[in-house]
Amino acid sequence: MTSLLISRRDLDFLLYEWLDVEALTVRPRFADHNRETFNAAMDTSEKIAADHFATHNKKSDQNEPRFVNGKVEIIPEVAAALAVFGEAGMFGLNADFEDGGMQLPLAVAIACRAYFNAANVSTSGYPLLAVGAANLIKAHGTPEQIAKYVPHMFSGRFLGTMCLSEPQAGSSLADITTRAEPQADGSYRLFGRKMWISGGDHEMSENIIHMVLAKIPGGPPGVKGISLFLTPKYLLDDAGKSAVRNDVALAGLNHKMGFRGTVNTLLNFGEGAHKPGDEAGAVCWLVGEPHKGLAAMFQMMNEARIGVGLGAMALGYTGYLHALDYARTRPQGRPLTDRDPNSRQIPIIQHADVRRMLLAQKAYAEGALALILYCARLTDDEQTEAEAEAREDATQLLDLLTPIAKSWPSQWCLEGNSLAIQVHGGYGYTRDYNVEQFYRDNRLNPIHEGTHGIQAIDLLGRKIPQAGGRPLSLLKARVRGACSRATETGDAFLTDAAKQLEQAFAKIDQAIATAAAIPDRGAALANATPFLEAFGHAVLAWIWLEQAAAAHGKSGDFYDGKRQACRYFFRWELPKIYPQLDIVIGKDETLSSMNEAWF
Amino acid sequence: MTSLLISRRDLDFLLYEWLDVEALTVRPRFADHNRETFNAAMDTSEKIAADHFATHNKKSDQNEPRFVNGKVEIIPEVAAALAVFGEAGMFGLNADFEDGGMQLPLAVAIACRAYFNAANVSTSGYPLLAVGAANLIKAHGTPEQIAKYVPHMFSGRFLGTMCLSEPQAGSSLADITTRAEPQADGSYRLFGRKMWISGGDHEMSENIIHMVLAKIPGGPPGVKGISLFLTPKYLLDDAGKSAVRNDVALAGLNHKMGFRGTVNTLLNFGEGAHKPGDEAGAVCWLVGEPHKGLAAMFQMMNEARIGVGLGAMALGYTGYLHALDYARTRPQGRPLTDRDPNSRQIPIIQHADVRRMLLAQKAYAEGALALILYCARLTDDEQTEAEAEAREDATQLLDLLTPIAKSWPSQWCLEGNSLAIQVHGGYGYTRDYNVEQFYRDNRLNPIHEGTHGIQAIDLLGRKIPQAGGRPLSLLKARVRGACSRATETGDAFLTDAAKQLEQAFAKIDQAIATAAAIPDRGAALANATPFLEAFGHAVLAWIWLEQAAAAHGKSGDFYDGKRQACRYFFRWELPKIYPQLDIVIGKDETLSSMNEAWF
Repeated sequence: MTSLLISRRDLDFLLYEWLDVEALTVRPRFADHNRETFNAAMDTSEKIAADHFATHNKKSDQNEPRFVNGKVEIIPEVAAALAVFGEAGMFGLNADFEDGGMQLPLAVAIACRAYFNAANVSTSGYPLLAVGAANLIKAHGTPEQIAKYVPHMFSGRFLGTMCLSEPQAGSSLADITTRAEPQADGSYRLFGRKMWISGGDHEMSENIIHMVLAKIPGGPPGVKGISLFLTPKYLLDDAGKSAVRNDVALAGLNHKMGFRGTVNTLLNFGEGAHKPGDEAGAVCWLVGEPHKGLAAMFQMMNEARIGVGLGAMALGYTGYLHALDYARTRPQGRPLTDRDPNSRQIPIIQHADVRRMLLAQKAYAEGALALILYCARLTDDEQTEAEAEAREDATQLLDLLTPIAKSWPSQWCLEGNSLAIQVHGGYGYTRDYNVEQFYRDNRLNPIHEGTHGIQAIDLLGRKIPQAGGRPLSLLKARVRGACSRATETGDAFLTDAAKQLEQAFAKIDQAIATAAAIPDRGAALANATPFLEAFGHAVLAWIWLEQAAAAHGKSGDFYDGKRQACRYFFRWELPKIYPQLDIVIGKDETLSSMNEAWF
Repeated sequence: MTSLLISRRDLDFLLYEWLDVEALTVRPRFADHNRETFNAAMDTSEKIAADHFATHNKKSDQNEPRFVNGKVEIIPEVAAALAVFGEAGMFGLNADFEDGGMQLPLAVAIACRAYFNAANVSTSGYPLLAVGAANLIKAHGTPEQIAKYVPHMFSGRFLGTMCLSEPQAGSSLADITTRAEPQADGSYRLFGRKMWISGGDHEMSENIIHMVLAKIPGGPPGVKGISLFLTPKYLLDDAGKSAVRNDVALAGLNHKMGFRGTVNTLLNFGEGAHKPGDEAGAVCWLVGEPHKGLAAMFQMMNEARIGVGLGAMALGYTGYLHALDYARTRPQGRPLTDRDPNSRQIPIIQHADVRRMLLAQKAYAEGALALILYCARLTDDEQTEAEAEAREDATQLLDLLTPIAKSWPSQWCLEGNSLAIQVHGGYGYTRDYNVEQFYRDNRLNPIHEGTHGIQAIDLLGRKIPQAGGRPLSLLKARVRGACSRATETGDAFLTDAAKQLEQAFAKIDQAIATAAAIPDRGAALANATPFLEAFGHAVLAWIWLEQAAAAHGKSGDFYDGKRQACRYFFRWELPKIYPQLDIVIGKDETLSSMNEAWF
């Protein structure tokens, strides 16, 4: 089948010809797998995504979840799609066999998820959150907690949420005020309000497992006093049945510009709306150590942030394929050299500016997909490499790449979606076509799971200096490796691109040294955002060089397309980093010297 | 009053301290005016915009025009606002006294319109179109046509439309198929379909005057066979009353991502839905010469394109003021150097990255406003300079700046609206705040009235070589003048900025020479878009240097803000042009060598 979701040809190239995921099958965890099982998972994913997710994407957008008679009403297609998804085992693509999962490499699981995100990013939000919550319990919960909840989350019987933000505390989690009062039986009672909770309430699953950050009274102030609590919507009875309504109440729905199909809520915990017995407070259980909740949550943050990048990429990718399809079939205008008004109109793909917009989208979407799969492959290495040092290397490199995997697709695949509208002209701006929704949906991605600016501070302020600079050294070693392979081909373009990439990273080193030499942390990080964007573009140039090197010596339209997109990236995109790095290197003080009264 | 629409302090600075619009009052056309009448017009505009336009902006967005029982239903606030607007004489801000207008300079009229566009770009669309249609009749119609229609359009009794596009012919007007059959009485009958017609049908005015491009059978093919026709929705009786329904039928409404309050339609002409008597075809009258319709329409195109830039700017400007207001009042986080979680949270305006986003918005919005007012001032010169050569200079320079006035605010004030969302965080992405609507509304602007790519071809392919390069020479003379004034101040920053600006224009010259030396027109214009964007940024750098020079020697927060925004523009924005110009200068062939099969 040929869908307008994600190119399977591209996935096959990236997974098998570049990342060599088949090699993973020699590792014990993946010993039951082979290329056929990988392909089968992707085939099934594309089919379910096309047949059950894409089919209600527009309907979800046009019929938002509503609060009716105390319950959240969601169009029935969402629950139906999740049922098919669950029956096919898709919640547990990379979960352990023992938890009912398929135990696929994450690289393959992410390829599968790419289809669902491209088909319907809103409906895909529910499993994303359920799986995230399940992984948290699996990583930090007691054996009893794991047995009681995790298998039901990987089967889709229970869904889940992540409750971090509050109305007054979004980016600044140090300032959350939700409190967890310890009870005699070892449980806790929660009191507080949680904002922006996707999947926070609905009737599509037997239960909803909320993973909530809260403070135990008497603990340290700020982020060091945050703990993690498992808070089900319904308390389970002894038979494991969702029995008694917990004191978690829907306080309101948020109405967004996009992502409308994922119900987004304000939740009240412990306001007595639904009390089990006479006591107030939402019944919950500590997961992991007290006061270590943020650390536990942040271990999942790499996954969540790569999940954001995946969603952004998928929207950019499907937008690109839609624009490409339109550009091949829409006749409009003539070549600039053809002055005969009686000649036939040409398909707009023949206009240089339309090609520019398509090439840019291809470079952004395919580049982002490659980056996300690379990060997923690193996660597989982190978990299954034989040597501890190799596992640690993978962790360190993944730490460094995560802010890029989150921010770069969020910025550039959104730009790609804007170009997809532009290719469609006036039609693209209407709701009769799909691309305007992709653009609206994608605009969320630079905001949630750490804003663009927070990714910048994370990169320059934390990941670059981390472990004595080990993550950056590892990255540069891989960049050098790619440059060597490119140069060894003898190909003129690849050789030149390798040289450009080395220059780019040399300039990045200069920027890092400049920032590191500034003693005041505020001043050192004032220009972190242009650094993030430049670093991201350099990383993507490396990813494109990797792809072009993997395509070298192979003939055919597909490989020629990879080469041309790489050329586009090096000629049109990579040079954008120099003005940005000059700001950092020049210690530009425009931001810090701006007086508030001057605005 | 202080609205979040447009800064009046900024308007006063630009009009009185920079563009010296008071000097226009010595010219006969503006002899009845003075600073007090200018101020009164702006005061009234801000008040009506805030009280009658902004108040239903969100409601219009959430309650789109609907087609009910054969009529278009629009929320009553729109007609009520237009009634207040009309009573205040706002349709005729710069129209002749003899047509019921106020005969204000266009620079002042545009300042007034900026308020309405900022308050409600959708409702502002109706007068924009009515005035555009009236101006067309005024410029090309017979005295009888003018007398019969124009005063009623400047009073708001009749509204109007521009009917250019067809479903199969958007950017390529050569391919329109609507035909106008000549009748014995000198009138014509129209047959065809027109797409994207804003204001195409509604019940808010006694009549709607459609200005329609169509072909007279037997005329030359392509754009040389296009004529312009005045086609009222209702034919006027001898008393001038809108009496008999013409054969113009609403065939459908377009549903857009934004701009939802402006009804946008597909119209059928001559399909017999409403026939006057027994004959088919919409009754209409030729305006101007046969086959010269496109030229007539394009004489209005400068105005329409500057109108698009005005709308884009206004959305960017009000978005900036909304973000600024939010950033001053929203507490979140602490300085990076403050590790005490018990300290008070700071307003987010104190974070460097938020300042970056606000400074960028300020630079985009205020820069775009200055550019639009500059163009309006040129239009005033074009119409009222005493010497013919000065008038012709103004025309030539305006021709060159028009693609920038259209494309630059459409690109960068949209980017500003994205930053306004980002400053608001998750809240900005919800429909509880205003900024997401600005972003959706603004996304139309790079599309209509000539797409971004078409502006690029217009600039590099037509305006740069026009009249032996006279427009560019005129611009460069003004740039040199600004550089001289900046350097003469002795101020270190202004002197350095002047040098940077000269370098930028030298590089632009190099790019132009490179493109001009390519014999094949397709190849010469293949990289027109990066040229457009680089040229636009250089023009805006000049506009910012002009502003900083005008602020020189003046003290106070307002002037310091202008200086800092100028600094931001030269340090953060202007350098972006070099990679773009390198693409042009390097005759990059990435686009032209891309094979369709490689996508």
